[in-house]
Amino acid sequence: MRVDGRAHDQLRPVTITRNYIKHAEGSCLIEVGDTKVICTATLEERVPPFMRGGGKGWITAEYSMLPRATATRNARESSKGKVGGRTMEIQRLIGRALRSVVNLEAMGERTIWLDCDVIQADGGTRTASITGAFVAMVDAMQKLVDSGTWKQLPLNDFLAATSVGVVGEEAVLDLNYKEDSTAIVDMNVVMTGKGKFVELQGTGEDAPFSPEQLQEMISLAKVGIDNLIHSQKEALADVTLSFAQSVAEESHA
Amino acid sequence: MRVDGRAHDQLRPVTITRNYIKHAEGSCLIEVGDTKVICTATLEERVPPFMRGGGKGWITAEYSMLPRATATRNARESSKGKVGGRTMEIQRLIGRALRSVVNLEAMGERTIWLDCDVIQADGGTRTASITGAFVAMVDAMQKLVDSGTWKQLPLNDFLAATSVGVVGEEAVLDLNYKEDSTAIVDMNVVMTGKGKFVELQGTGEDAPFSPEQLQEMISLAKVGIDNLIHSQKEALADVTLSFAQSVAEESHA
Amino acid sequence: MRVDGRAHDQLRPVTITRNYIKHAEGSCLIEVGDTKVICTATLEERVPPFMRGGGKGWITAEYSMLPRATATRNARESSKGKVGGRTMEIQRLIGRALRSVVNLEAMGERTIWLDCDVIQADGGTRTASITGAFVAMVDAMQKLVDSGTWKQLPLNDFLAATSVGVVGEEAVLDLNYKEDSTAIVDMNVVMTGKGKFVELQGTGEDAPFSPEQLQEMISLAKVGIDNLIHSQKEALADVTLSFAQSVAEESHA
Amino acid sequence: MRVDGRAHDQLRPVTITRNYIKHAEGSCLIEVGDTKVICTATLEERVPPFMRGGGKGWITAEYSMLPRATATRNARESSKGKVGGRTMEIQRLIGRALRSVVNLEAMGERTIWLDCDVIQADGGTRTASITGAFVAMVDAMQKLVDSGTWKQLPLNDFLAATSVGVVGEEAVLDLNYKEDSTAIVDMNVVMTGKGKFVELQGTGEDAPFSPEQLQEMISLAKVGIDNLIHSQKEALADVTLSFAQSVAEESHA
Amino acid sequence: MRVDGRAHDQLRPVTITRNYIKHAEGSCLIEVGDTKVICTATLEERVPPFMRGGGKGWITAEYSMLPRATATRNARESSKGKVGGRTMEIQRLIGRALRSVVNLEAMGERTIWLDCDVIQADGGTRTASITGAFVAMVDAMQKLVDSGTWKQLPLNDFLAATSVGVVGEEAVLDLNYKEDSTAIVDMNVVMTGKGKFVELQGTGEDAPFSPEQLQEMISLAKVGIDNLIHSQKEALADVTLSFAQSVAEESHA
Amino acid sequence: MRVDGRAHDQLRPVTITRNYIKHAEGSCLIEVGDTKVICTATLEERVPPFMRGGGKGWITAEYSMLPRATATRNARESSKGKVGGRTMEIQRLIGRALRSVVNLEAMGERTIWLDCDVIQADGGTRTASITGAFVAMVDAMQKLVDSGTWKQLPLNDFLAATSVGVVGEEAVLDLNYKEDSTAIVDMNVVMTGKGKFVELQGTGEDAPFSPEQLQEMISLAKVGIDNLIHSQKEALADVTLSFAQSVAEESHA
Repeated sequence: MRVDGRAHDQLRPVTITRNYIKHAEGSCLIEVGDTKVICTATLEERVPPFMRGGGKGWITAEYSMLPRATATRNARESSKGKVGGRTMEIQRLIGRALRSVVNLEAMGERTIWLDCDVIQADGGTRTASITGAFVAMVDAMQKLVDSGTWKQLPLNDFLAATSVGVVGEEAVLDLNYKEDSTAIVDMNVVMTGKGKFVELQGTGEDAPFSPEQLQEMISLAKVGIDNLIHSQKEALADVTLSFAQSVAEESHA
Repeated sequence: MRVDGRAHDQLRPVTITRNYIKHAEGSCLIEVGDTKVICTATLEERVPPFMRGGGKGWITAEYSMLPRATATRNARESSKGKVGGRTMEIQRLIGRALRSVVNLEAMGERTIWLDCDVIQADGGTRTASITGAFVAMVDAMQKLVDSGTWKQLPLNDFLAATSVGVVGEEAVLDLNYKEDSTAIVDMNVVMTGKGKFVELQGTGEDAPFSPEQLQEMISLAKVGIDNLIHSQKEALADVTLSFAQSVAEESHA
Repeated sequence: MRVDGRAHDQLRPVTITRNYIKHAEGSCLIEVGDTKVICTATLEERVPPFMRGGGKGWITAEYSMLPRATATRNARESSKGKVGGRTMEIQRLIGRALRSVVNLEAMGERTIWLDCDVIQADGGTRTASITGAFVAMVDAMQKLVDSGTWKQLPLNDFLAATSVGVVGEEAVLDLNYKEDSTAIVDMNVVMTGKGKFVELQGTGEDAPFSPEQLQEMISLAKVGIDNLIHSQKEALADVTLSFAQSVAEESHA
Repeated sequence: MRVDGRAHDQLRPVTITRNYIKHAEGSCLIEVGDTKVICTATLEERVPPFMRGGGKGWITAEYSMLPRATATRNARESSKGKVGGRTMEIQRLIGRALRSVVNLEAMGERTIWLDCDVIQADGGTRTASITGAFVAMVDAMQKLVDSGTWKQLPLNDFLAATSVGVVGEEAVLDLNYKEDSTAIVDMNVVMTGKGKFVELQGTGEDAPFSPEQLQEMISLAKVGIDNLIHSQKEALADVTLSFAQSVAEESHA
Repeated sequence: MRVDGRAHDQLRPVTITRNYIKHAEGSCLIEVGDTKVICTATLEERVPPFMRGGGKGWITAEYSMLPRATATRNARESSKGKVGGRTMEIQRLIGRALRSVVNLEAMGERTIWLDCDVIQADGGTRTASITGAFVAMVDAMQKLVDSGTWKQLPLNDFLAATSVGVVGEEAVLDLNYKEDSTAIVDMNVVMTGKGKFVELQGTGEDAPFSPEQLQEMISLAKVGIDNLIHSQKEALADVTLSFAQSVAEESHA
Repeated sequence: MRVDGRAHDQLRPVTITRNYIKHAEGSCLIEVGDTKVICTATLEERVPPFMRGGGKGWITAEYSMLPRATATRNARESSKGKVGGRTMEIQRLIGRALRSVVNLEAMGERTIWLDCDVIQADGGTRTASITGAFVAMVDAMQKLVDSGTWKQLPLNDFLAATSVGVVGEEAVLDLNYKEDSTAIVDMNVVMTGKGKFVELQGTGEDAPFSPEQLQEMISLAKVGIDNLIHSQKEALADVTLSFAQSVAEESHA
């Protein structure tokens, strides 16, 4: 039995509220249990200097936590004058993950900025950010389809992320903060709608893990991600058509 | 007629949602029209180095905007590696304003951190922050009353803030972003429940203003702040008793 | 009776020494009692990036104190690696104040940098900076009139600043450091030669102030600023003609 | 056939030169093909502030590249004034990996700093750093055994790391720079002497990967790490005894 | 003939105005031609962390230029967020030079901060800083003699500095800015009252120099420094007695 | 007798290993006793902004120490977020020294970056850096001669550097760390192949030095530099021809 009564392969309740911030081209509030992240997507009509002239687009992400998202207050990175290692690692992960399902060539020289701001944290903030950022990104992309700039969404597949781990003796899905802090193995998994891996980051700092444990965790992650993508599809019901088409083309290729 | 149909002395709709963030000792979401700020209050059982040993408490504030709170994306101050002048000015103002109604001696050597994070901006973010931070602070203080640490809230009065300005020829109350960007005079006013000034910051960058215009704006500010304090009282209905008592004692002194 | 024997509506002695620094296009040493500020004005034949192509000019200010301008040594902001909140607030104020009397359109795409360096501090450094920076700016502008680039000074009015406050029970003008540190209310006022407000920044951190106290302080500020502008006119006696003309035109409009 | 003629499951030549830097408590130069890293271990008789009083030790790592370790010159992070995201990610990884095989309780309140400085880079610098840092750390630890401070090395197992990836259609071991830049999947694996996983970080930015490809890569990594640990054992031949004992005890527990 | 008509071995006019800043324990304005530097000395009753417990004192210096000390405006180092290489080099030089004539043991655990702020620059700012800082330091030290803390000044000798160089074919003393910018060799010399070298920094970036040129420059420096120390003695006439005594004791040792 | 048995005018053993880093256009490992520095030279086909359009080339240097190059670990400057004063002083010295023998006009608008990274320190790291950087620079320059871009090396002379000092009563050449830390006078000398001075930096922080001591030290430096240039010539035996020609031309002019 888990601390909050869930089965070992059960996600926490997931809610995705689209168009949460009026100014952004795409946005949502994603809630996974008590973890709450505001994700916004911003369209910019240019790419960073290192990509100029290449004709391709770019997806980049920033991640932050409000100081009181956590049980004790964290000093702001702006006050400390530098972005910490954990934050950098997470925002590099989010950007890389999202880029894996985007057809950058089809974007033209445009950037989409994904801002993931955690307003309340209870474990799994980086994976919730990826799952929510995907939805915000689709909405921002749809704006360019609606305006006729793009014929279809430059997307290859759905994308979601979750965490798995070993708590006590058991492999479990979607760890909350209490579980995360006692887990001996912790793994974040990002997968596509077709069930392929985009990122796999497993750490056994407190105890190394065996190949068998790896298999178990991967199976749980697959279950969780299927459910998360189901939630994304429901949230994006009205844009499914053009998006499904874009995915369909890809899968026939 | 104003751009959004309000009378010249009319506030935008105000909503205060208490206990918005589960981890914080006090918190609220304050909405003034489309301006939305998450205010949290954190209790810390020590004071900053420059105050140690003096037996008094301290109130300090930090202010920030999510990158996409505004119509175009603003770079994060953490990424830029420094806190900008506007942010510093605002967080100094918030801290100073809140301290003016707190009995620091009665706090003992404790700090209350007030974090004001703007998630959506439409003018008046600093004044909404002050009005919301007051509510979050009361809730955090009440925790120490409930635990028996304090006998009563170390507060002298209510406190709220609003903006006034001259748009076209007319003095108006509570400017939204569109009004603010065309105003020739802009003034932020912080007042107590008893109608005294705590801060008055008026700027006539585009055109200097006359003593008569100053009087007009001050009158409007008084109307707005009375209404805002009314909203605070409604939101804090269940803590009013012990708080009203503390104010009463003060006013008899 | 005030600590230095002045009447409540009396300024400290004011001295303005023009052309204090040989390299600058305009400069002065302004002394207000024991407060001494070197103000220089630098002409630059371009505007900051955010203004390019708009055809208008820009006025910007920087403010600093020598480490030993004060009773105890302050660490340099260059050594600390960042400009503090107080400094930013002051330099934003100086720039905003000076811009209010300048016709930016008439300047063309040029910047005037105003550097205010406090070499000795005894209260009122920010207001002395504004009063002195005005004189340095006029001299720099006159250089472009002399060279035939401009037909007249792009100025609408004189500009000066002073502080007022409540010390003990009494409202007083031009607080020195000793008064400032015991004042319960502190207000900085920037006014034009025609008696209009450009900035009004009052703070009652130690005790909120009433509308009556506000009126008293404003009246004192008016007296002080009239005297400061008189000192500016004496100092600028030889450039008065063309400058008066420019003001005259404005006042007939 | 691979670009340098290796078989798909073949490491590049590995050389470990112990005691490379005379001042350090432990040090080596590790060469994996043309990748060359100087690893030093420094003993410090205290732990970082967040661990004081807990009685446990700490292992931390820093990683850097000389500007001309790579084909084109990289600006120094000291000149840029901040440590980049990639560097932070790598040094966090190295520290976490090494801690996984150390008995921190048995260390007492001591820190071992591991500095990994890449003097020449040709792919796989982070995994070579981990493999080399292990050797430097053993030598530093042995100093405390020799001095009688510790009875035995506070180590649970050997530790090494390598990279695997998919280049073209084929999974390959130990990618050099040329292979790395064309790989569609890239995975870093850290394993213990007993064949358990400590870290697994796989990225399919250019193309997501299937569960089958994951299995293939993991098998190759196991082969590589067995060989690397063989090289470590040869290099550490003279300290093997006491070290093997410490591992033996652990495995009987 | 030199650009300003001086003989090759002639200093510019030197003026030292003591007690220039009222708050500092010691201060002067030193003018060497058009180069003007405010030097202040601050007593602090502790030493930096790396010296605590050693019973010795410390002398440290900071150097800065006002932005408009020079012909074109220099950005402030506080705005740039870091102290440049030239500034660091100069402040290290000033501190080292002054320490060479101070008996640090006799100071007890106290620091003297020397702040040298160039308000107008025309060549030789670092050497004028050293010469002026010596005077400010003597005044600050005298305060501790007057208060009875020290029996005598903890000084071994006078100290002054000047520049010499090769302009065209000729070796010249005390280069102004115009000469400095065309000099092919530039040398700064710091000497004691007894004619010994404390620092010698010669640079032949544009053309290396011969041993003969070195001799010529050293002879000129000696002439200049004798004159500068004469100016210091005149300025310090009233403190000469106790100071001369302290030097006398030293020279008998 | 010196601590390591050398005569007072004897250098430590010098080894120069060319082409030490495969990616750099020029590189060497220079060993002077136990001091070991990796020097690389990087060609860049442009000059810094302040030199653009002038048709001339530029030589610039960066210097750093690995954290454990010294007896105790030094924190990295990248971690501290700023380059220290000592480092800046040294890299400015190296750049200036190397530029003195280069014909910048003949380079065209190209930059050569010289990176000097100390991997093991035992005194004299800055002078070893200069001596080694010269060799790396020659190799990088030769690449442009070989490619036909330049007809000959844009060099005027050889260049090397050493330290001299007074230890106890005696002047000695090439101080190791133990000697350096007890020396009362310390001087770095940079000279050309023709025996002219490029830099002379002498410091008598612990005791000022006499003109006679200066002469003695200069004589020793000359001996040391002749030997160091002999080592450079041996190391560069295969490029001597074209280089000697360039020096010859210069000496006939």
